[in-house]
Amino acid sequence: MPLLEERSELDLVVWPEDRACDRAWLLDNITGAAGVIVTLTDKIWIAGPSLKVVSTMSVGYEHVDLKAVAQQGLKVGYTPDVLTDAVADLSVMLALMAGRNGGIGTSVVQKGEWKNYSWAPFGFCGPQLSTTSASPKRTIGFLGFGRIAQATLARLVPFGVTHCLYSSNPTSPANHARDAELAAKYKLQAVKKVDVDDVARESDVLFVLAPGGNDTYHLVNEELLKKMKKTSVLINASRGTLVDSDALAKALHEGWIWGAGLDVVEGEPNISVDHPLVKEPRCVIVPHIASATLETRRAMATRAAQNLIAGLLGGQMPAQVDLANIS
Amino acid sequence: MPLLEERSELDLVVWPEDRACDRAWLLDNITGAAGVIVTLTDKIWIAGPSLKVVSTMSVGYEHVDLKAVAQQGLKVGYTPDVLTDAVADLSVMLALMAGRNGGIGTSVVQKGEWKNYSWAPFGFCGPQLSTTSASPKRTIGFLGFGRIAQATLARLVPFGVTHCLYSSNPTSPANHARDAELAAKYKLQAVKKVDVDDVARESDVLFVLAPGGNDTYHLVNEELLKKMKKTSVLINASRGTLVDSDALAKALHEGWIWGAGLDVVEGEPNISVDHPLVKEPRCVIVPHIASATLETRRAMATRAAQNLIAGLLGGQMPAQVDLANIS
Repeated sequence: MPLLEERSELDLVVWPEDRACDRAWLLDNITGAAGVIVTLTDKIWIAGPSLKVVSTMSVGYEHVDLKAVAQQGLKVGYTPDVLTDAVADLSVMLALMAGRNGGIGTSVVQKGEWKNYSWAPFGFCGPQLSTTSASPKRTIGFLGFGRIAQATLARLVPFGVTHCLYSSNPTSPANHARDAELAAKYKLQAVKKVDVDDVARESDVLFVLAPGGNDTYHLVNEELLKKMKKTSVLINASRGTLVDSDALAKALHEGWIWGAGLDVVEGEPNISVDHPLVKEPRCVIVPHIASATLETRRAMATRAAQNLIAGLLGGQMPAQVDLANIS
Repeated sequence: MPLLEERSELDLVVWPEDRACDRAWLLDNITGAAGVIVTLTDKIWIAGPSLKVVSTMSVGYEHVDLKAVAQQGLKVGYTPDVLTDAVADLSVMLALMAGRNGGIGTSVVQKGEWKNYSWAPFGFCGPQLSTTSASPKRTIGFLGFGRIAQATLARLVPFGVTHCLYSSNPTSPANHARDAELAAKYKLQAVKKVDVDDVARESDVLFVLAPGGNDTYHLVNEELLKKMKKTSVLINASRGTLVDSDALAKALHEGWIWGAGLDVVEGEPNISVDHPLVKEPRCVIVPHIASATLETRRAMATRAAQNLIAGLLGGQMPAQVDLANIS
């Protein structure tokens, strides 16, 4: 905010509360504005004639109608990179919680039921993320293999990961040189782009870290979940739309996979206690907090302000969405 | 179990349930036994005259009265090493959960309250485990720096850890060569034994991973907690007795530290909903599951059987407690 306030050329109108902006307030105040900083919850599909720059404080921009803004010649800024580490941290947390009864365990204690569970040799057991001498192979899979996925992989290396398989945008070719470099750096037996089914079949932990939008809608569905290992866990820290919630609930209920860890759920935040995934004990859900660290949110806000200032007053936007191929 | 069953020299008496053994059953059946395999919940303080070997399926052996068994000339086996990775995995999980609202977040969703929390720039924010360009230093502290602590450190290196401070048994000297080797291997600015107060003062994440027993009773008390950073988190994956629960609850309630992640609590499993730590929202508690993976519990059972067989039938016990200095 100081970044914006010190620009006397800019006339600031600021939503005064620390919560998502009311739609009516946004529509009232965007009229006549030259630029706007928005968050994920603000859908941008019509822009007034004065608007030049949309700067979103998020790594995703599926809430912005790119076609409409491209036609009007607007610039769109976003905040990649700065939240990579926070999201990777949370992805590792969810992977551990999904395998190790993180949700069930905390819930048992919170309800005062610990005393009902006497120590048992196999009580509260789950699949181990780390390799063991009896179980020396671990395959980590990624649907989407961008910055966040690679940062997550890096964090899992000391857990003994041996193989990394990923699938990504079918139109972009595999980057063999990059993959060979990663495999060498992390001493992995493979880092390899394969098709989605093979990622599902082989992975012990499957991370969904791809963009939202139509192209990836329900990428994780019944068919894919049925291919996964019974001891595997599914993690989604990207967008709820990539995972079919009913299919995942069925997969957990019928034991097709071991567990799940979700930072996002389709239809959030309207997720009631009756939601099929909330009712699955082996489904750990946190309320879209993957980038929620003090350090990262400050960096995202700074980047969004820098994008807006550059877009309006001239200069290179630190992170601009490429609209050249949008039509 | 097959390991024991195939030994026709041994007459097996087995507690038939997958839960901790009833005390009365143990006392009835231990009479006349030459060896016994026990778990943490079985206190061994008097041994019958026929008993030669106590094999505990645990890394700790504070539930065995070493003085009494040493005087009787018994051998004691335990299961170190095999659970190192499972406990290190869980320690990382708790560190992430304690910082990133893992407990509060899952609870909000479980109660159907997600809809009440609209996205806010600093909603659900916590301190970030990973370093950022604005916050490039992370100090990880350990009270106790054995196998599990070192395995935990290894897992945190890719999160950007820069410094490692530890304190350990005051009578054992610092191992400068080992520390220099670890610092070089992990590219850390320091791996250093310091006094307990300095570990508390400097750490962003403080792991308690020391043995239980009288020497470490309430090592983490009010005085120590007051020295910690307001943004730090405390993790205990060793024994509940090391941490004064009332002091920790006070520290969390009054904001001396940011959060806590506990696998163990003094007095467990009798921890009710009124327990001061259960009532602290930033205290994540799981019911003593640090070694609870299928892989590890199988390995622990195997090691306990091997210890018993070697102790009774001859040969080197794979892991024997050194009773030479017990008197």
